[in-house]
Amino acid sequence: MLGVISFSVEASSGEARAGSLETAHGRVPTPAFMPVATQGSVKGLSADDVADTGARLVIMNTYHLALRPGSELIAGRGGLHEFCRWPHAIATDSGGFQAYSLAERTRLLEDGFEFASHLDGRRMLLTPEEAMRIQGELGSDIAMQLDVCPRAGAPEAELVAAVERTTRWAERCLAAKRRDQALFGIVQGGIRLELRASHIEALSKLPLDGLALGGFSVGEPVDEMHRALAVLGPALDRRRPRYLMGVGTPTDILTAIGAGIDLFDCVMPTRNARNGQAFTAAGRLVIKNAQYRSDPRPLEEACVCLACRAGYSRAYLRHLFVAGEILALRLLTLHNLTFYARLVAEARAAIVRGVFDRWSKDQLAQGI
Amino acid sequence: MLGVISFSVEASSGEARAGSLETAHGRVPTPAFMPVATQGSVKGLSADDVADTGARLVIMNTYHLALRPGSELIAGRGGLHEFCRWPHAIATDSGGFQAYSLAERTRLLEDGFEFASHLDGRRMLLTPEEAMRIQGELGSDIAMQLDVCPRAGAPEAELVAAVERTTRWAERCLAAKRRDQALFGIVQGGIRLELRASHIEALSKLPLDGLALGGFSVGEPVDEMHRALAVLGPALDRRRPRYLMGVGTPTDILTAIGAGIDLFDCVMPTRNARNGQAFTAAGRLVIKNAQYRSDPRPLEEACVCLACRAGYSRAYLRHLFVAGEILALRLLTLHNLTFYARLVAEARAAIVRGVFDRWSKDQLAQGI
Repeated sequence: MLGVISFSVEASSGEARAGSLETAHGRVPTPAFMPVATQGSVKGLSADDVADTGARLVIMNTYHLALRPGSELIAGRGGLHEFCRWPHAIATDSGGFQAYSLAERTRLLEDGFEFASHLDGRRMLLTPEEAMRIQGELGSDIAMQLDVCPRAGAPEAELVAAVERTTRWAERCLAAKRRDQALFGIVQGGIRLELRASHIEALSKLPLDGLALGGFSVGEPVDEMHRALAVLGPALDRRRPRYLMGVGTPTDILTAIGAGIDLFDCVMPTRNARNGQAFTAAGRLVIKNAQYRSDPRPLEEACVCLACRAGYSRAYLRHLFVAGEILALRLLTLHNLTFYARLVAEARAAIVRGVFDRWSKDQLAQGI
Repeated sequence: MLGVISFSVEASSGEARAGSLETAHGRVPTPAFMPVATQGSVKGLSADDVADTGARLVIMNTYHLALRPGSELIAGRGGLHEFCRWPHAIATDSGGFQAYSLAERTRLLEDGFEFASHLDGRRMLLTPEEAMRIQGELGSDIAMQLDVCPRAGAPEAELVAAVERTTRWAERCLAAKRRDQALFGIVQGGIRLELRASHIEALSKLPLDGLALGGFSVGEPVDEMHRALAVLGPALDRRRPRYLMGVGTPTDILTAIGAGIDLFDCVMPTRNARNGQAFTAAGRLVIKNAQYRSDPRPLEEACVCLACRAGYSRAYLRHLFVAGEILALRLLTLHNLTFYARLVAEARAAIVRGVFDRWSKDQLAQGI
């Protein structure tokens, strides 16, 4: 059973908001970070592992799941929640970003994207209607519209065309969606603030359940993104959840929360874990470094993740990583996702106390 | 804290025994199957995962851990139990089997084995004394003697030399071992039963805490091993735990329990899991097979492993395996080790009820 979401802002501190997103699969306190489960699994973690990190909303990928195992198969198994045994909320990306990240396999048409599958070359036409049909079969709580994400540094005309087409596709997605599934629109426009603003205005007129900023962290300088967020975050309709897609570092996330963003997703905590990097309040720790060879401490003293609370030492984690033991990947992933979940939970608490700016500056000064 | 083990037989049924092995790290009901944690981790599982399968005794590898991360480092971290956060019992293989499996890197001398490290070619002389020094630093509950494991089909003279040298090395290991660490001897002799019998006689005279059968499952026909076990199992001192090393399939294990064996280890449940094979009471299941594409059932209905009790379907497990998601490896490993733990626990219950032979025949008839 799905059901359209509801969202309320419970407290604010400057532009930062502490909210509550109610879904048919539970409440998600915001700001919230969504772990990425591209193929229906957060790499290395079982569903109970993911819940143990504190996450209550994950994001999965329409394009990847449509190709394998197929949305029809997943629908036959009761949808993603049942198939993946994840009882909490699920968002699904539309596949629009894969048209960007797999650009050499993609042709952009007014009707949609034509993909050559990265698995077997099979042709696939992903229209707004098809993206909604697939997401309807997947049964996510939150579907994302099909959008056009231009490459960084694209010329003005290309940015304008992408924005206009994305608006037309938002309307087509709204017309095609399941009534019981929430739909978010996606704002494009690169780092052209006036173009972004007009796109926000256009999408805000549509009965979308949330608004996302797409097309960031695609190669533009970080400072430019931060400056854009300061303007664009507050410009997004304050009654709807605001989602910054595919971003980012702890610094990016605190900056965006300060600009009023509610939702995030990023592969950074999971991908970096698999490369042996752990996030801590004092900065990043590269576990294979010789300095951890006989270090008896857990990754982080105060951490409640399974790796830290079970007492696995940096020395043991380093040994596992160097020896190629896959347990290292799971333990570092558990730690990093717990770190991200705690970061947004602490940000929320600071917002509720009305001290977000000061708290955030302290965190950033510690070199988070 | 270690402490020499104690062992008692609580019930028997034919030659099969239900026993209890008391260690400084808890009681191990026997028959018991030891998951293999070569490098200090059962591949893909955390310590709590391993305990969740039902295992209370694991086996780790002296040769691999001595090379990486080094026994001195592990001793500095409080020994294997503390380093690996495994609070239950640990046995360590001596490295003798690596002289067999890495034969091309090994030279056999009267004093011990000379290895060229498989990691960096570094020379390492593994004498009986060195094997005990390393295992003493590792701090396992049960150390294994250094032994000579001849290849299958070795000529009589080579088998005899291996047996005699293994006896001399057992004496040297006894003289060199930590007082608070249990030591098992290893019976060799290939499939020459009279040679095996005389080796059993020689080792039984030594104050070893247990006796193991080594050199099986090295290429000889399965039927020959089964015939040998029927003779050799009952010939092993009944007051000491009897351990069949590196064996085997569920059929092998039930056959060996019927011959009075108490302890087992084998990579089969963990390695096969990583190759996508699940053990069930109805036989083995190859998860990537198309027949499981949309199969809603768990691997096994009655199974209490994390994968089955969380309700992960064969369809989802197949998807994870085919998509290269490492979660598949963990879930199949959890299932297979739980299957093995349940197999020996049910065998024990049948022994206590005095019906082991009939129960075992029923299991084998079901095609286990």
